[in-house]
Amino acid sequence: MVGIVIVSHSAKIAEGIKELALQMAPEHKGIVCAGGMEDGSIGTDAVQVAKAIQQANDGDGVVILADLGSGIMSAETAMELLEGEEIRAVLADAPLVEGCMAAVVKSAYGAKMDEVLESTERTREVTKTNRGKA
Amino acid sequence: MVGIVIVSHSAKIAEGIKELALQMAPEHKGIVCAGGMEDGSIGTDAVQVAKAIQQANDGDGVVILADLGSGIMSAETAMELLEGEEIRAVLADAPLVEGCMAAVVKSAYGAKMDEVLESTERTREVTKTNRGKA
Repeated sequence: MVGIVIVSHSAKIAEGIKELALQMAPEHKGIVCAGGMEDGSIGTDAVQVAKAIQQANDGDGVVILADLGSGIMSAETAMELLEGEEIRAVLADAPLVEGCMAAVVKSAYGAKMDEVLESTERTREVTKTNRGKA
Repeated sequence: MVGIVIVSHSAKIAEGIKELALQMAPEHKGIVCAGGMEDGSIGTDAVQVAKAIQQANDGDGVVILADLGSGIMSAETAMELLEGEEIRAVLADAPLVEGCMAAVVKSAYGAKMDEVLESTERTREVTKTNRGKA
């Protein structure tokens, strides 16, 4: 099953997203949080993200969702740290919460990496209001 | 100052977002969470959202960020519940975490409702990867 890594500056955000995702796909074993710093403060840590990717990977690859700014940079650094290893890890170009829900549901159904990534990134196009519509 | 309401199925997600937002704008007094159900379980509650909007409003209006699905519906219902009141509350068409950070920073600088909403919704266009770029 494709693994999912949730990178956020806040441990609470990452844990909350995992909690919500597990409501949608209770049997998913590959959702791993990388939220906040080791001491619980706000921030992101590339080494923690790299460990989360290793943990989430069962051989089918890992989709990474990151919040913003240095969260994205930590995800990129983590992928570089793992370059020697046989893990296909890709940072999704998608909103953190919305993208993660799509990633988890799609991967829980057994979809392959590219399909999971496509569903995840399609959440960019979802609108939340009907302003501007006829 | 424009108020911000964070609607999520998960109390942890909403609280984490507020925590992160307060790092960016520690002086912001108008960030209010409406996450999870009253008993702490996963879900959203339109009455709780309506109360959060009232609490966030100091007369300059309120931008609402919601996660997905029934979170969006609860936000819409909350706005209907408040229809008789003199509160301008608008649901942003923006990703929850990313949009909220923009909303909080912009409102903390004293921007008016329309500017806050525009900055918030512009986060839809932010990309997180450089795939596909030259």
